[in-house]
Amino acid sequence: MALRVGVIGGGQLARMMIAPAVELGIDIRVLAEDEGMSAQLAATAVGDYRDLETVRRFAADVDVITFDHEHVPQEVLRALVADGVRVHPGPDALRFAQDKLDMRARLTELDVPQPDWARVADAAQLQAFLDAHGGRGVVKTPRGGYDGKGVRVVSDAAEAADWFADVPAGDALLVEELVPFVRELAQQIARRPSGELAAYPVVETVQKDGVCAEVIAPAPGVDAEHAAQAERIGRVIADGLGVTGMLAVELFQTADGRILVNELAMRPHNSGHWSQDGAVTGQFEQHLRAVADLPLGETTPLKDWSVMINILGGPAEAGMLDRVPAALAASPHAKVHTYGKTPRPGRKVGHVNAAGADLDTVLSQARASAAAFA
Amino acid sequence: MALRVGVIGGGQLARMMIAPAVELGIDIRVLAEDEGMSAQLAATAVGDYRDLETVRRFAADVDVITFDHEHVPQEVLRALVADGVRVHPGPDALRFAQDKLDMRARLTELDVPQPDWARVADAAQLQAFLDAHGGRGVVKTPRGGYDGKGVRVVSDAAEAADWFADVPAGDALLVEELVPFVRELAQQIARRPSGELAAYPVVETVQKDGVCAEVIAPAPGVDAEHAAQAERIGRVIADGLGVTGMLAVELFQTADGRILVNELAMRPHNSGHWSQDGAVTGQFEQHLRAVADLPLGETTPLKDWSVMINILGGPAEAGMLDRVPAALAASPHAKVHTYGKTPRPGRKVGHVNAAGADLDTVLSQARASAAAFA
Repeated sequence: MALRVGVIGGGQLARMMIAPAVELGIDIRVLAEDEGMSAQLAATAVGDYRDLETVRRFAADVDVITFDHEHVPQEVLRALVADGVRVHPGPDALRFAQDKLDMRARLTELDVPQPDWARVADAAQLQAFLDAHGGRGVVKTPRGGYDGKGVRVVSDAAEAADWFADVPAGDALLVEELVPFVRELAQQIARRPSGELAAYPVVETVQKDGVCAEVIAPAPGVDAEHAAQAERIGRVIADGLGVTGMLAVELFQTADGRILVNELAMRPHNSGHWSQDGAVTGQFEQHLRAVADLPLGETTPLKDWSVMINILGGPAEAGMLDRVPAALAASPHAKVHTYGKTPRPGRKVGHVNAAGADLDTVLSQARASAAAFA
Repeated sequence: MALRVGVIGGGQLARMMIAPAVELGIDIRVLAEDEGMSAQLAATAVGDYRDLETVRRFAADVDVITFDHEHVPQEVLRALVADGVRVHPGPDALRFAQDKLDMRARLTELDVPQPDWARVADAAQLQAFLDAHGGRGVVKTPRGGYDGKGVRVVSDAAEAADWFADVPAGDALLVEELVPFVRELAQQIARRPSGELAAYPVVETVQKDGVCAEVIAPAPGVDAEHAAQAERIGRVIADGLGVTGMLAVELFQTADGRILVNELAMRPHNSGHWSQDGAVTGQFEQHLRAVADLPLGETTPLKDWSVMINILGGPAEAGMLDRVPAALAASPHAKVHTYGKTPRPGRKVGHVNAAGADLDTVLSQARASAAAFA
């Protein structure tokens, strides 16, 4: 009998766990939100992940529960744990990925470097923060933000008035200083329930329009001290928040050399996709190993440079079917990963990885292949 | 709508096509011989591949048919082609993998170096061949041989008397000279219907008890001339036999430096498993690209040395579940591939790949991991 890992959510992250699950002999089962989702091949159930009975039925047939996303409500997670289900990451860790105010408070306790921040319950509190930080700040809804949504740069508290109007009594918004960063980095790290950690090299992520566009691994020009600092931040957070599975820490690097924590994700993350083809152990395999409490794999890069380019969908009328041949023809070296999604402008429908000794070469190989999807 | 590739046969080769199919956005469907086979995850039908109507029903819902094995009868294959189904490799190529006498005759026409051989219809003809080749020879049943079965070394024609008794009238056995080889090599090559070829470096295969035990890529100590010769043999056979998909050519290397063709396989082959983790494009991805007539991928090795160690099952009572953690713990560098099979002594239940700059190191990493399954 194989170990059964149940993944809640049928998106591309669940899809990309299928390959390493097959390799390791793990029986992967997916609770998908709908028919025909990215992880359709492994979908054994379709239902609402917010409904306890749906999730409970799904969990009854697996040995470990993990996730494609961080949106399963705390009460559902806690009921599973009370049922004796192995849930990784568990609710005590996931709450810090679900609530940015809780996350900022916990990172402050852990003395992790991060932007100045405040919990602001009304416009006056927000204005006070802005006044103390050069008149500008980043306002975030504590819950439900994703890829630039739920995030707004303001230079006057009035610009967040609509959000304050929606904040429930007793609740608040998060405001952070607008960090004058020179670039964004990301640190991937895996942690098993037994405590074993495995860190990947820190990478550079290039955002376009608030969405991750390209990743370069390792981050070019990062010196040993900064690489060690990023890894240390990852380790402190993984241990301090009790993360199990993959943790991605999105980081700002400032002109004066500081590294500050921007966001967290407790799952395989876009910034770690390069590792599928660029590291001895890809992040999807590592996530499965970690949540199943199996020995972690080596994280060493296979080549000097690895890159990942996201594929954003072009017009829907031209399907992926016609574009894959062009992408493969554009570079015999690049690795194309598709998500089984209907293209539409701006929608992430796949990514391309490439790895090699020369960064410019691998970047142009991967970009040429990704461009075929535009 | 995704391209639909149907694989006939539900064994480990079909299983290992699942991961690259997901990546490339190919809708992979498997006609399995039984429930619970290695490729269960993608099995959309269960039935007898020798039954035309079963295969026809399966083929009706896919764009391309390919195979996990070479045992689908010619009449079934030809009926599919007559129906207009894209079958790769097609019957005109597959017949040479299905009948060793046809294969030897065709390779003779193509002037490919191979052992002396003869079609022998009775003991007298066999004895004449043995007398002319130092008194010994390798007798093979033309059809149905696999991994040492259907192959017998004889020093007297009487030793093949039982086989001759079973040969239908008008049919014959194959006899080949016993080649004094110093080692065995294998050449992998992919060919698209449109004719594009992509060759992998020639590898060394180490057999134990007639079964492939270890593969080293590239073959240690092969000079450029021999590597080019092996590749040329692969190209001549792929073109000459009209192979589509992966072709594996098993080769003997003799003390006097000759390279002779031993056997052919028209599918991903055990001797090419190293490429999953050791080459830019693994043989299972390459096979899918080739049969779908997609541009082929780069075959360059990722590291100086790649190795593959087969995992043979130990006692059935201890399942794979307990052994995977030990195998992963034995080497964080090795890549474990399981086949979803119940172990029994001598049964191939998986393999381990490793790649790196030092051959001794990767061999010991892979062997340590594989040993955990014994």
